[in-house]
Amino acid sequence: MNKDELKSILDDVAQGKISAEDAAVKFKTEPFEDLGFAKVDHHRGVRQGAAEVIYGAGKTKEQILKIVLAMLEHGEKSVLITRMGKEAYEYVSKEVPIFYDELSKVGIAGEKLPNENKIGKIVIATGGTSDIPVAEEAALTAEFYGSNVFRLYDVGVSGVHRLINSMDELATAKVVVAVAGMEGALASVVGGMVDCPVIAVPTSVGYGANFGGLSALLSMLNSCASGVSVVNIDNGFGAGYLANMINKI
Amino acid sequence: MNKDELKSILDDVAQGKISAEDAAVKFKTEPFEDLGFAKVDHHRGVRQGAAEVIYGAGKTKEQILKIVLAMLEHGEKSVLITRMGKEAYEYVSKEVPIFYDELSKVGIAGEKLPNENKIGKIVIATGGTSDIPVAEEAALTAEFYGSNVFRLYDVGVSGVHRLINSMDELATAKVVVAVAGMEGALASVVGGMVDCPVIAVPTSVGYGANFGGLSALLSMLNSCASGVSVVNIDNGFGAGYLANMINKI
Amino acid sequence: MNKDELKSILDDVAQGKISAEDAAVKFKTEPFEDLGFAKVDHHRGVRQGAAEVIYGAGKTKEQILKIVLAMLEHGEKSVLITRMGKEAYEYVSKEVPIFYDELSKVGIAGEKLPNENKIGKIVIATGGTSDIPVAEEAALTAEFYGSNVFRLYDVGVSGVHRLINSMDELATAKVVVAVAGMEGALASVVGGMVDCPVIAVPTSVGYGANFGGLSALLSMLNSCASGVSVVNIDNGFGAGYLANMINKI
Amino acid sequence: MNKDELKSILDDVAQGKISAEDAAVKFKTEPFEDLGFAKVDHHRGVRQGAAEVIYGAGKTKEQILKIVLAMLEHGEKSVLITRMGKEAYEYVSKEVPIFYDELSKVGIAGEKLPNENKIGKIVIATGGTSDIPVAEEAALTAEFYGSNVFRLYDVGVSGVHRLINSMDELATAKVVVAVAGMEGALASVVGGMVDCPVIAVPTSVGYGANFGGLSALLSMLNSCASGVSVVNIDNGFGAGYLANMINKI
Amino acid sequence: MNKDELKSILDDVAQGKISAEDAAVKFKTEPFEDLGFAKVDHHRGVRQGAAEVIYGAGKTKEQILKIVLAMLEHGEKSVLITRMGKEAYEYVSKEVPIFYDELSKVGIAGEKLPNENKIGKIVIATGGTSDIPVAEEAALTAEFYGSNVFRLYDVGVSGVHRLINSMDELATAKVVVAVAGMEGALASVVGGMVDCPVIAVPTSVGYGANFGGLSALLSMLNSCASGVSVVNIDNGFGAGYLANMINKI
Amino acid sequence: MNKDELKSILDDVAQGKISAEDAAVKFKTEPFEDLGFAKVDHHRGVRQGAAEVIYGAGKTKEQILKIVLAMLEHGEKSVLITRMGKEAYEYVSKEVPIFYDELSKVGIAGEKLPNENKIGKIVIATGGTSDIPVAEEAALTAEFYGSNVFRLYDVGVSGVHRLINSMDELATAKVVVAVAGMEGALASVVGGMVDCPVIAVPTSVGYGANFGGLSALLSMLNSCASGVSVVNIDNGFGAGYLANMINKI
Amino acid sequence: MNKDELKSILDDVAQGKISAEDAAVKFKTEPFEDLGFAKVDHHRGVRQGAAEVIYGAGKTKEQILKIVLAMLEHGEKSVLITRMGKEAYEYVSKEVPIFYDELSKVGIAGEKLPNENKIGKIVIATGGTSDIPVAEEAALTAEFYGSNVFRLYDVGVSGVHRLINSMDELATAKVVVAVAGMEGALASVVGGMVDCPVIAVPTSVGYGANFGGLSALLSMLNSCASGVSVVNIDNGFGAGYLANMINKI
Amino acid sequence: MNKDELKSILDDVAQGKISAEDAAVKFKTEPFEDLGFAKVDHHRGVRQGAAEVIYGAGKTKEQILKIVLAMLEHGEKSVLITRMGKEAYEYVSKEVPIFYDELSKVGIAGEKLPNENKIGKIVIATGGTSDIPVAEEAALTAEFYGSNVFRLYDVGVSGVHRLINSMDELATAKVVVAVAGMEGALASVVGGMVDCPVIAVPTSVGYGANFGGLSALLSMLNSCASGVSVVNIDNGFGAGYLANMINKI
Repeated sequence: MNKDELKSILDDVAQGKISAEDAAVKFKTEPFEDLGFAKVDHHRGVRQGAAEVIYGAGKTKEQILKIVLAMLEHGEKSVLITRMGKEAYEYVSKEVPIFYDELSKVGIAGEKLPNENKIGKIVIATGGTSDIPVAEEAALTAEFYGSNVFRLYDVGVSGVHRLINSMDELATAKVVVAVAGMEGALASVVGGMVDCPVIAVPTSVGYGANFGGLSALLSMLNSCASGVSVVNIDNGFGAGYLANMINKI
Repeated sequence: MNKDELKSILDDVAQGKISAEDAAVKFKTEPFEDLGFAKVDHHRGVRQGAAEVIYGAGKTKEQILKIVLAMLEHGEKSVLITRMGKEAYEYVSKEVPIFYDELSKVGIAGEKLPNENKIGKIVIATGGTSDIPVAEEAALTAEFYGSNVFRLYDVGVSGVHRLINSMDELATAKVVVAVAGMEGALASVVGGMVDCPVIAVPTSVGYGANFGGLSALLSMLNSCASGVSVVNIDNGFGAGYLANMINKI
Repeated sequence: MNKDELKSILDDVAQGKISAEDAAVKFKTEPFEDLGFAKVDHHRGVRQGAAEVIYGAGKTKEQILKIVLAMLEHGEKSVLITRMGKEAYEYVSKEVPIFYDELSKVGIAGEKLPNENKIGKIVIATGGTSDIPVAEEAALTAEFYGSNVFRLYDVGVSGVHRLINSMDELATAKVVVAVAGMEGALASVVGGMVDCPVIAVPTSVGYGANFGGLSALLSMLNSCASGVSVVNIDNGFGAGYLANMINKI
Repeated sequence: MNKDELKSILDDVAQGKISAEDAAVKFKTEPFEDLGFAKVDHHRGVRQGAAEVIYGAGKTKEQILKIVLAMLEHGEKSVLITRMGKEAYEYVSKEVPIFYDELSKVGIAGEKLPNENKIGKIVIATGGTSDIPVAEEAALTAEFYGSNVFRLYDVGVSGVHRLINSMDELATAKVVVAVAGMEGALASVVGGMVDCPVIAVPTSVGYGANFGGLSALLSMLNSCASGVSVVNIDNGFGAGYLANMINKI
Repeated sequence: MNKDELKSILDDVAQGKISAEDAAVKFKTEPFEDLGFAKVDHHRGVRQGAAEVIYGAGKTKEQILKIVLAMLEHGEKSVLITRMGKEAYEYVSKEVPIFYDELSKVGIAGEKLPNENKIGKIVIATGGTSDIPVAEEAALTAEFYGSNVFRLYDVGVSGVHRLINSMDELATAKVVVAVAGMEGALASVVGGMVDCPVIAVPTSVGYGANFGGLSALLSMLNSCASGVSVVNIDNGFGAGYLANMINKI
Repeated sequence: MNKDELKSILDDVAQGKISAEDAAVKFKTEPFEDLGFAKVDHHRGVRQGAAEVIYGAGKTKEQILKIVLAMLEHGEKSVLITRMGKEAYEYVSKEVPIFYDELSKVGIAGEKLPNENKIGKIVIATGGTSDIPVAEEAALTAEFYGSNVFRLYDVGVSGVHRLINSMDELATAKVVVAVAGMEGALASVVGGMVDCPVIAVPTSVGYGANFGGLSALLSMLNSCASGVSVVNIDNGFGAGYLANMINKI
Repeated sequence: MNKDELKSILDDVAQGKISAEDAAVKFKTEPFEDLGFAKVDHHRGVRQGAAEVIYGAGKTKEQILKIVLAMLEHGEKSVLITRMGKEAYEYVSKEVPIFYDELSKVGIAGEKLPNENKIGKIVIATGGTSDIPVAEEAALTAEFYGSNVFRLYDVGVSGVHRLINSMDELATAKVVVAVAGMEGALASVVGGMVDCPVIAVPTSVGYGANFGGLSALLSMLNSCASGVSVVNIDNGFGAGYLANMINKI
Repeated sequence: MNKDELKSILDDVAQGKISAEDAAVKFKTEPFEDLGFAKVDHHRGVRQGAAEVIYGAGKTKEQILKIVLAMLEHGEKSVLITRMGKEAYEYVSKEVPIFYDELSKVGIAGEKLPNENKIGKIVIATGGTSDIPVAEEAALTAEFYGSNVFRLYDVGVSGVHRLINSMDELATAKVVVAVAGMEGALASVVGGMVDCPVIAVPTSVGYGANFGGLSALLSMLNSCASGVSVVNIDNGFGAGYLANMINKI
C-alpha cells in the first residue's frame, strides 16, 4: 500500500467522507478476493505492474479454473498459467479459450496478445536441446508481458564457435537469459561477451553429480563474469518475468 | 570481439592495408596486456561498457599494484579494487592516490568521481547491521560506475513496519539491492512491495544452521516474489555492478 | 514412571501387600499392550496428557485397524490417525465409525468431539495454497485435542499487506502456527508481528533449490524474529500437537 | 502496528485532533530511532512484550555501547546483550554498570532484576558438560525476562538413569529446554517423559560427522516424541526467550 | 590367500610335485568360478568363515538362479539371498526349494537350518513398527548363520520405559542390533544400558529432514555411548552378519 | 576454429578470392547444421577427431531420428547414440539399420565397424555385476571409435585375489577404466597395480549412504593412488571416449 | 540399573531392612557424584564393564583435574583421558602421576597397567602416516582396558602388496581396526581378507573433496565387504573401546 | 608384484636355488623399507614407472627428511615433495641440496633434471591468477618426470577471446591441464576446442557458494565436453603426474 493511497484514505477520514471504522475496514478488505483456498490479488497490477500469475503445480484443475474465472471476471484480458498439466489444460479449455504449449506446460487463458506489439529484445539461449522446455517457459512469459524474444537454442560452451557465430544477436539484446544444465558454463561465457544484464537459469538437465541442478546452480552463482544473476533451478517463469521487467525499463 | 571489429580488420586485409599474417597477429595480441601472472584486458571497457576491476583476494599487494599501474598507464582514470586488505591498501597508497573503505575493503585508485554526476536511483537495503560491509561493497561499486545510491540499512523483516515506513524510497527506485543473512527473507518481502528488479545478495551473517550463507542463499533462490534474482553469497560487487547496469538502461 | 507411582508400589511391598517379585513384574508389564508389531501405550494419556496417536505411514491397513481396536477397547473415545491412505480409511471404516479428511490424510476413529467445546485460539497461517494439506493436519490435530483454530491461508510474504490485514486475528492468538514452503519467510514476518509463540512448519512445497523443504527449514531455523521454533518438514501433526499444548497452558 | 493503535490515530484525524499529513508522518517516524548503522526499536516492548535485545556478534564495541546508551536513555531499566566478547564487555563496563557471564558471553547492562521475583519453572537440561555455555545463554535470558530456571546439566541419554532420577524436577516444569550436541537424543527422551513443551537446542559440540551441529539438529527435528520443537544450532537466546514466553502464559 | 596355502603350494613346487608354471596357474584360477556376469567365490567359506551371499538388488532373476545353482552344485547346503523381489523368488522357487520372507525380501534356497541348533544370543531391537523389515533382514541373516535371535520391536526412546522393561533381555545379550529411523536415538540409549557391542542400523524410515536416513545415520555415528558402531542405512544384512560373527566368538 | 583455417580464409580475402562480407558469413554459417531444436556439428570430426555423438536422454525419438539422418546424410558412416530408450531404438530401426544393446542402452546407427580393425588395449573392470551396464556403455563407445577392449567384470576389492589373478591383463593395458559403485575402492587398488592412466567411473549402484553415487565419487576423487582421474557418476560414455583417446595416442 | 539391583533393593524393603522412602532416595542418589558441571558415574564400571572415561575436548584443565581426582578418590586405579591438550596434561601432572602421548593426545592418570597382562589380539592398521594419531588413540585405549595390540601402519590400498605381506598378522587377529582417510578403501580390502570383525575409523586426513572425512566415512559405510562397521570420523577412542570389548568376549 | 617376478621366484624354488621358506620371506620383506611411521616403497619405480613421491602435508619435518634420505640412499637421484611447508624446506635444506618453489610449496631434493631433456607438450591453463599455485604444483610435477610444459595462465572463460587467441598452443598439446576455481567452466570450453585429453583440476579459489571448491568440482564432473576427466580439488600433483603419464605414451 503506497503512501498516496494511505494519505488519500486519511484525507477522506479527516474530511468526514468516511468514518474511521470504515477506513480500517477499507485497509483490510480491499486488495484481494478470498476464494477460501487462495487470495486473488486484484491490486497487484497497480502495485507491481503486472497481473498475478497462476503457478499451476500443487493446485487442482478445479482450483485453477476458479482462479482463472475470478481474474477474467475482474477485468483481466488474459491470464498466464505455468506448470499446468495437460489434464488441467483440457479441463479449463472447456470453459475458457486457452492457448497451451505442451513442452513448457504454459497456458494462456483469455485473449493472446498479438505478436506485432512486442517491444525491445530479449535473447534466450540454451546450452542444449533438453533445456528447451525451461527456455520456452521463459520465452512465453516474456512474450505474454509484451517483450520481443529471440530464441538461440543449443549453443553450449563445448562448441564455443556456435556462440561466437551468434555474436550479432547477443550484441543487440537488452537482456540475455542463459538457460543451461550440466556444468552451466553458458552464463559465464555469455556474460563475458555482452554488456547487458544476463539472467542465468540453471536446469535439472543432466545426471549423476549434477544433483538435480545443483551443479549448474553453483556454477552460475560463482560466475567469474560480471552482470550475471541467478534464479531458481528450472525457473523459466522467474527469468522471463524479470527479463521483461528489465527489457521494458 | 564483435562483428564490427571483425569486419573492419577483414576489410583492411581485403584492401591490402594490412597483410593476412598481420591480421592474425592482431587477433591474437591486441585485447590484453600480459603481466605474466595476469592478462589485463584493456578492451573490456569497449566490449562490456566498464573497465576491468581488480578482485584483490588471492593476489599479493605487489600484484595488485602492478595491475593498477598497468591500467592507469593505459588511460583508465580510476580503478576499482575489491576485497583489498588494509596492508595492500597501504602498499598501493605509497605509489598511487587511493580512496579506501575499511569496512567493505573497497579501494578506488586514481581519481574518484565527484558525487554530483551520479544518475538514476538504486536502493540498497540490509536486514541487519552486520550486513553493512557487503552492502557498502555494492554501494561503492555502483557509485564508482556513476549511479545514485540510497542506503536503507537494518530494515529486517522481523520488524516489517521499518520496511513499510520506507515505502516511498523503495517505490522510486529503478532497482533494489536486498542484502541479508540469516533467513534472507528481505528479498521476498521487498520483492512483493516494488515493481522494479530486485537483486538479492545472501550474506554469511549468522551462525549454526545458516551454514555460511547457504540458508539465505536458498531462501532467496526460492523467493515467492517475482522480479528477484540472486548473486553469490557476500558478492556485494556483483550486485552493485549489475544494479548499475540496470539503473543506466 | 513418575515418583508417586514408584513410591506407591514400594509402599505396597513394604506393607507386604505385594511381593518384591510381583513388584518387579509390575514395573515390567503394566504400561503397554504388546500387539507383536507394536507396543500400544495405554498409560501415555496419564503420563503425557494425551492418548497415543497412530502414525499411519509405513503401517498396513490391517495393522492400523488392530491398533485402533485395541485403543478403543481400552477405553479411548476417539483415536487420531495421521498420514492415512484412502485405502486404509476405507478398510477401517467398515469396522469402526471414522471421520476422514482426504486433503490432509487425517482420520479420526470413534467419536468426534463437538466443535462447541473448543477453547483458546490457535491461528494457523500458510504462505500459499499448496501448503494447505500440511496446515490442515495441524488444524485437525489441534481441534482433536480441544483447541479452537483460526485458519488464515495464502498470506505469503510477497504480498505482505495480506498479513497486515489479518493483524487482528494474529494479535488475539495464544499461539500461531506458520506453515510455508519455498523461502519460508512467513515465520519471520509473523514472528515480528505477534508476542506469542510461533511454531514454524517448513513444507516441501516448491521445486529446484528448495531441495525437498530444506530451503524453508533453514530459513525458519535462522529466523531473525524471537519466539519462533521449528518442527520437521511437513510435520503438521507435530505443530498441531504442540500448539494445543501451549494453547491449553 | 496493531488495530487499536491504527484506529486511535484514525479517530484523532477524524476528530480533527491531528491532520492527515501528521498522521502519515506519525506512521512513518515513530517506531524506531535511527542510529545510522542500526534502527533501535523502542516500540517493541509494546508490540512484542519484551524490549529489544542486542545480538553482539558482528557489532563493534562502539556500536554496542551506542545502542545500550540509546536504550537506557529511552527508559529501559536493563538491556540484554548476547554473544558479547570480553573486550566489548570491558569497553561498555567503563560507561555503564554491567553484569557479564564469560562462559555464555551474556551481558546485562543497567539494573539486574532481583532473583526473588522470578515466576513459573523452566528446566534447562544438557547432555554434557560442553553444552553448558549454550544452556547458560538460555538460562540467563529466561531469568532476565523474569522466569525461574532449574539447571539440570550433564544428563545425556547414554546414562539414562541420570535423567530418570530427575523425573521430579522434569514433571513440575512448565517448559523444558533440552540442550545437546553429538546425537542430540536428549530431546526425544525428555520429550517422552514430560507433558509440557520441550524446546530443543542442538549444539555444535562434538566432532567429525556432527558437521558443526547438523547431526543434533536433524536428530531433534526428527524426534519421535511429541511436543518438541527446535531452534537454531547453539541458539541459547532463542530457546530462553521462547521458554520465558511459554512459562509466562 | 593366507600364508599356509601359499607355503603349501611353494612346498609342492620345491618337492617337484607341481611345476612352477602350474603353481602360477593355480594361483590364478582356483578361487572362483566365472559365470561371465559374476565370479562366484567358492573359497570364501574357507577364507572368511561363511559362504558367499547373493545381493539380489540389481540382478535379474535369471542371474540369481544361475548363481544359486552354481553354489548348490558346488556343495553349499543353503544359500542366502537378500533384497530378492517377489518375482525373482517365484522364478527361483520353480527350480529349487526356497524359503521366502516377503517383508524383509530375504530368501533361503536349499535346506533351511533347524532352529534348535542356534547358539548364543543376539537381541535385535527396533524403534518403531516401520523398522521391522530391516530388522528381519538382520534377524534372518543371523539365524541363517546359526545364531539365536531375540526380537524386541517398537521400543523407541520416546517411551523409554518400554526399553527399561526389557532390561533383562538386553542384559543377557552377547551383542545387540539397534534398528531405528527418524532420530536414531535408540542406539545411544541402548548403548548406555548394556556392556556388550551394539551394532546400530539407521533406517530410511521417516520423512522431511530425515533425508533418506541421513538423520539416523549421523545420530548413530555421533553416539555418546561407547561400544556402538554403525552400518549403512537399511543394511540389515550387514548388521546380522556382523552380529553373528561377534556372537560366535 | 584453428589458426590454419583462420589464416586460409584471411588469405582468400587478401587475394580477393572472397569478399570480407562473405568471409564473415563463412565464419558464421559453416560449422553446424541447424535443425531448430539442435545444432548438428559436422566440423567436429575435424576439430576434435571424432564425430558428434547423440546423447539420447531428454530427446524424443523423433528428434533422435532426425539427427541420425542429418549425420548419415552428411557423410558419417555410423552414429553412436547413448542413453537410448528401447522405444526410440525401435522407432529409429524402422528407418535406419541399427545395432542396439539393451543393457547399456547404446545404439549404433549405420555401419558397425568390424572387430578385427580394433587397436591397442583398454581394460574395463567392474566392482560387481550391477556395474556392468555402465561398463558396457564405456566398452561399446571405445570399440565404436576403434579400440580393443578387454572386459574384466566383478573383481571388487572385497575379494582382492580376483584382481591379483588378473594382473597379466592389467599389466598389458594402455589404459584402464575402473567402474564401481558402493565404496568405489576399485580405482585405488587398480591404480596402485598398474603404471598406465586409470579412468574411474563411479556408479549409482548401492543404497542408503551411497547417496546416488556420491560415495563412490568422493572415494575415487580422493584416491591415494596416482594416475587416477574421474568422470561423472554413471558416465560410461565419457570414460570410453577418453580411454579411446588415450589408447590411440 | 539392572534387574538384580532392582530386585535386591525391593527385597530389602520387603524385609523391612530399609524403608520405602530410603529406597526411593537410593534410586535417585546412588549412581553418580555431582560435581556441578559434571555427573561422575561411579556405577558405570558395574553397569558397563568399564570405568567412565574423560573426553577432554571442551573441558577446562581445572574441570579435568577435578573429575580425575573424584574418580581416583572413588577407588579407580587409573583414569583414561582423551583429546587432552598439552596444557591440561601439564596442569594435571602437577597433582597426579600421569602418562601422556602427545601425538594422540591420550593421557592415563594414576597407575598404568603393565604390558604383560594384556590378552587377545587386536590389529590396528592405517592407510598412511598421517592416520597414526587416530590409530594411537585406539591402540592406547584398547591397551588401557587390557588388550594386546599389534600396530600395522602405512599399509594403504594403493600398494596392496604391503597389506598382503601382513596377511599372517591379520589372520590371527580377533578383531581388526582399520584407520584411513582419503578414500578409506582400507576397510573394504581388509574386510575381504579376514574372517573377524573389522571396525572402520574414517579420518579427516586429506583435502579438497574429502570434506573433512566425509569421503572416507561414506566409503566405509558402503563397504562391499561383510563384517565391517563404522565409528565417527577420527573416533580412535570409540574404535579402541569396542575392539577391546569384542577382543575380550 | 607382476607375474614375471612371481614366476621367477617360483622357478628359483623349483630349481632348489632358494627354499620355500625363503621365498615366502622374500614375498614379505622385499618391496618396501619400514621406517616405523612409513613404509617406503623402493619397488614402485619398477611397478609403476615412477619413484614414490612424498606428500608433505601431515608429516613432520623430521619425518620428511628421514624419507628423503632413505630414498636417496636407495639410489633415487631426486625426490619430489609436495605440500612442503617453508619450515620443512629449511630443515631439509641443511642436509640435502633442494630446490623449493614457495608459491606451490613443491620441493625437489637431490639433483634437478636439466630442462633440455623434456619431451612432448603439456599445456597447463588457469582461469585466474589465484589458481597459479595449484597450476605450478602440476607443472613442476610434470617437469620433474621429464615432460615439457607450456603455461597459459589467466585465460578464464569470461573473456573467451583470451583462450581463442591461444588456440595454437592448445592445438599442439598432447594433453591439457585445466585449472580453475569459481564456476570451473574452463574445462568445458577448452574440452570443446581440443582433441586431446583434458585433465580438469577444480580449485578452492572463490568464496561463498563455491563451498571450498565444490562448485568447480561439480561443474567439471558435469562437463558437456568429451575427453575431460577430473582430479581432486587443488590436486595439482595428481594432474601433473597423470598428464606426464599420458604425454609420454
